[in-house]
Amino acid sequence: MAKLPLIMITGSPRWAHEEVDQLFKDIADVIVDDAPDRTEFFARFAPGGPYEGTVGIYRRNISAARIGIFDANLIEQLPSSVKWIAHNGSGYNLVDVRACKAKGICLSNTPEVVDDATATTAFYLVISCMRHYALAEHSLRSGNWKKLVYSGATHDLTGRTIGILGLGGIGLRLAHLVHAFPMRVLYYSRSRNPEAPEWCEYVDSMDELCAQVDVLSVHVPLRPDTVNLVGEKQIRAMKRGSILVNTARGKVVDEDALLRALDDGHLSSVGLDVFSDEPNVNPRLFDFPQNALLPHVGTRTRDTEKKMEVRALTNLRDFLTTGKGRDLVVELQ
Amino acid sequence: MAKLPLIMITGSPRWAHEEVDQLFKDIADVIVDDAPDRTEFFARFAPGGPYEGTVGIYRRNISAARIGIFDANLIEQLPSSVKWIAHNGSGYNLVDVRACKAKGICLSNTPEVVDDATATTAFYLVISCMRHYALAEHSLRSGNWKKLVYSGATHDLTGRTIGILGLGGIGLRLAHLVHAFPMRVLYYSRSRNPEAPEWCEYVDSMDELCAQVDVLSVHVPLRPDTVNLVGEKQIRAMKRGSILVNTARGKVVDEDALLRALDDGHLSSVGLDVFSDEPNVNPRLFDFPQNALLPHVGTRTRDTEKKMEVRALTNLRDFLTTGKGRDLVVELQ
Repeated sequence: MAKLPLIMITGSPRWAHEEVDQLFKDIADVIVDDAPDRTEFFARFAPGGPYEGTVGIYRRNISAARIGIFDANLIEQLPSSVKWIAHNGSGYNLVDVRACKAKGICLSNTPEVVDDATATTAFYLVISCMRHYALAEHSLRSGNWKKLVYSGATHDLTGRTIGILGLGGIGLRLAHLVHAFPMRVLYYSRSRNPEAPEWCEYVDSMDELCAQVDVLSVHVPLRPDTVNLVGEKQIRAMKRGSILVNTARGKVVDEDALLRALDDGHLSSVGLDVFSDEPNVNPRLFDFPQNALLPHVGTRTRDTEKKMEVRALTNLRDFLTTGKGRDLVVELQ
Repeated sequence: MAKLPLIMITGSPRWAHEEVDQLFKDIADVIVDDAPDRTEFFARFAPGGPYEGTVGIYRRNISAARIGIFDANLIEQLPSSVKWIAHNGSGYNLVDVRACKAKGICLSNTPEVVDDATATTAFYLVISCMRHYALAEHSLRSGNWKKLVYSGATHDLTGRTIGILGLGGIGLRLAHLVHAFPMRVLYYSRSRNPEAPEWCEYVDSMDELCAQVDVLSVHVPLRPDTVNLVGEKQIRAMKRGSILVNTARGKVVDEDALLRALDDGHLSSVGLDVFSDEPNVNPRLFDFPQNALLPHVGTRTRDTEKKMEVRALTNLRDFLTTGKGRDLVVELQ
């Protein structure tokens, strides 16, 4: 009997164990990488080693603690047998796309399935900031009942304006959620999204977007050209007392400019699920108890984590059976 | 020139100062009560005193710290000149309705204008509990990044079922908000709400409601017959791992039964804006960091607080000009 192709998962699947068996039955053998470090990881690719002949890798972020992120160094050392890396996540800034391209390795991510959970996280941060609920919870838990709460800086969402920076799947999902109030929804993207409903208004520039909104929510990927995309100029273009929410990547927002704007009250509060130096969080963000701060849990639900695993694994399965996967990242299309 | 009728506000208006002037121009004189205690409060009603002849009272909750709640004792001592008490709030359990009725005093509340802000609070608690965001925020702020977060107990809202107990204005508004995901919406009320959309399904009993839902959200007023309406039996009728949210009044839920259900994991988490012995909070609720706990801030936004003040004051104005106000409480209609 012919040997099946080898698929590697960098760490045991979180929820999709049964799905792994189903997806690769009679199609591939699956091994779980548990190399303690990068040196050992590559040693196992040697002829006769357990990773020899690996064709596809399902990359889980958790492996970064052992073998590091998939930087150029790691990609370049992969054997030529590796043809596809299926990254588990929407953002793939921890995988070096250029190194993949140079080596002819395909890279896929897990779009769409993350939209609901991530937009819900942004939605939660918007509500918390508008209402200063983080401060209210702190007031209660610190034995002060509602003494620390001041309603003068809090607002109903209904009728307020939100600006969505980057109207991809997550941004569009958030638009639909806040439309329930309704909030007025404006957006700016590199191009108009043809799926945007008519109540979702395109504005011509980021500066105009910033100037018009009560809340700005960031939904652009981290790329070299989006580092500090929301900086001093953009934040100062926002109205005094407005709110900034970021569930994309920390480095898309200039965190120093953000802190200065909190210091002088230009921003009323910020809602962050991502930070510029994760998992380190600038403790100055804690000086403002009305800030809603989450430890990058945008997609962290049992339901969505499972959907993401299945989506990543399906790319590998499709590559093995058809030669291509649906979620090839945009730089490699 | 004839003397104008006298209207009293028990504490300075919070946001609606200009509106007070507009509403009562040429209709009434307005005084702000600042009596340090109940004895002095009544002394000022004496002939020649500053409160003599007061026709209507706009009651703010803040006055309870000085003159106490509007219990039977207070209502009975009011002079016969007082014809209308306009309570600022949707729930009026701090005003003795029977004493008002016995004395022929009309009592109004502020329905409708509270719906949006209160339903938003319930919505926030639902999201927080489904996602264990309170635990995630605690994990981050305690220097543990996401170490304390476990995604196995967290869920997307989309496709889950919420039960709304009491489909009045607030419950119906919450139904519309969660429908954005959508969640499946079931409700139980004393009677069907004719304004309920077709996707908002009526069930015949509270027990059936409890048995079917992933989240139960409480929206019934506190009355003698609703004390502990959600008790041991109802909570145990819910599925293991489900969520209870209460933004109505603490005493509507049996807090001891709720704590037992958290202890043994029958309830995954609870989201509470109200407590059975406010402002005292049972510290055992803090033992479960996934609980989302707010200090009764359901309507606490600048926008809604202003709308509530205007609504309460409008009842007094309408009474003075037409002899009736639109928000007479149901027991007095």
